[in-house]
Amino acid sequence: MPATDASELLDAALAGDRRALGRLLSYVEGGGGKAQRVAALTFPRSASPDQVVGLTGAPGAGKSTLASGLVVEARRSGPVGVLAVDPSSPLSGGAILGDRVRMQEHAGDPGVFIRSIASRGHLGGLALAVPEAVRTLVAAGFPLVVVETVGVGQVEVAVAGAADTTVVVVTAGWGDSVQAAKAGLLEVADVLVVNKADRPGAEQARRDLAAMLDLGPAPGGWRPPVVLTDATAGRGLPELWAAIRGHRRWLAETGCLEERRRARLLAEMEDVLVRRLAADARTSHEGAVWERVTGAVLAGRLDPASAAAELLASVAP
Amino acid sequence: MPATDASELLDAALAGDRRALGRLLSYVEGGGGKAQRVAALTFPRSASPDQVVGLTGAPGAGKSTLASGLVVEARRSGPVGVLAVDPSSPLSGGAILGDRVRMQEHAGDPGVFIRSIASRGHLGGLALAVPEAVRTLVAAGFPLVVVETVGVGQVEVAVAGAADTTVVVVTAGWGDSVQAAKAGLLEVADVLVVNKADRPGAEQARRDLAAMLDLGPAPGGWRPPVVLTDATAGRGLPELWAAIRGHRRWLAETGCLEERRRARLLAEMEDVLVRRLAADARTSHEGAVWERVTGAVLAGRLDPASAAAELLASVAP
Repeated sequence: MPATDASELLDAALAGDRRALGRLLSYVEGGGGKAQRVAALTFPRSASPDQVVGLTGAPGAGKSTLASGLVVEARRSGPVGVLAVDPSSPLSGGAILGDRVRMQEHAGDPGVFIRSIASRGHLGGLALAVPEAVRTLVAAGFPLVVVETVGVGQVEVAVAGAADTTVVVVTAGWGDSVQAAKAGLLEVADVLVVNKADRPGAEQARRDLAAMLDLGPAPGGWRPPVVLTDATAGRGLPELWAAIRGHRRWLAETGCLEERRRARLLAEMEDVLVRRLAADARTSHEGAVWERVTGAVLAGRLDPASAAAELLASVAP
Repeated sequence: MPATDASELLDAALAGDRRALGRLLSYVEGGGGKAQRVAALTFPRSASPDQVVGLTGAPGAGKSTLASGLVVEARRSGPVGVLAVDPSSPLSGGAILGDRVRMQEHAGDPGVFIRSIASRGHLGGLALAVPEAVRTLVAAGFPLVVVETVGVGQVEVAVAGAADTTVVVVTAGWGDSVQAAKAGLLEVADVLVVNKADRPGAEQARRDLAAMLDLGPAPGGWRPPVVLTDATAGRGLPELWAAIRGHRRWLAETGCLEERRRARLLAEMEDVLVRRLAADARTSHEGAVWERVTGAVLAGRLDPASAAAELLASVAP
């Protein structure tokens, strides 16, 4: 009979049982008491990951192929875990499995673990499920973790914020570099990649990105390098990995690594706190007050912000 | 001396003073007491907008040009307001102005008001600043509002959720339609657009999207039409506007319009409530408990979720 206890599962995962690790990650996705037990168990064993690399950019930029190629490079430094983040739709709660087909070249390698992650029952959504999943991989013996996200929105920016090093992928064919700036991507990038560099315009895209980086101040002194890759042909991947590791060294040397990780932990704690307060908010109001205030909103008499203020006042001590 | 009082500004805006309307929207962006006064003022005067249309899709899909072309069509039904949503970076708080150059054709038309909106001081961020800005436009005499967003992430999905009708824009060159599904876009679309339809593959993209729509159940009975456009050349825009108005009619006939708007208002109120609780959360904890718990997190002894639970328990009545 397979283990279901988090502690036994972690022991099994450390002994190479991939299904045990998969189950731990399912617990994290599902949220609730099981997720919390996994979190409590893995947290003290994941304090010092080698490097958490976030890979983000527009759909169609070739991130999955790039991630697969990066794994080949990263693998030389140790075991590698990959999380492919699938944002659940807020409407259906469903998630489409990441494109794991391109990752099959790693199927026989015990030092590579690849997994799609959604946020089915997790109270905190992806923004909180991802750091817990990362810690689970680290505790299970994968100190290098690559987190690949799907989109270019603020959730992706938030998930990228959970990484030590954020790699932003664009292609020359994706549109001009102004679009990358508009999406707020330049500001979170530690390393920039122009993928599909075999296509016309790649060198121009590299120059555009470099010029835009010149406009803003280098955050904390790090100037994001721009790397050209052709992930399908495997070109540029050693250079990309070298840039990622260069950022890791810079983080460690300047003390930013420790500082960023501490700030992330506190932000995560406050985020959980807020979400639990939110979950309690509705139940903590008397039914009559809630009905009266929402009735006023629906009748067009009270705007939502004023209604919230009135509800808060009704429970103030 | 120009008016600064919200009520005077709204009167001036209704009399055609565009700078007064711009200032009201700046108040909304800035948050705080001024935003709340604008919200209280505009809410009862904006209960029945003609139609709020959300326009979303990947950067580079040509949304700005499409929005500008849509305004030409929409203008025949009455005055039109356009909000170009710029997500502020969570890191810098900065925002890049929307590409208003393409909108200049409307510069001399008093029945068109175009404005970029960010969420500088607004406590609720864009998700809450946008509905307030929409209501401000409606109250100021622009009953048709087009909200154009930049990205394809969950914030964009949330902003799209503030619209009566969500238009999702893709291009044939954007990648295959699976990517649109992965980003969760198909599920929020009421109308789908394949823009840049002069390029090869547009008809194929239309067929792919239609096939994917066949896979899922039509939400509430509405099957999103797929419209081909070439916004630069002005092709397909009357058909797109007809599809958008068709959705508006369907919403009204089925009672969904009223139902959606009511649900949105209550969701907005709960969102404000949660954010205000969050802002109060830190101050409501005793300094010593907060220090001890965060210290345990930073020392690697207590995971963030357990820490949040401990903080909550410390203030439980």
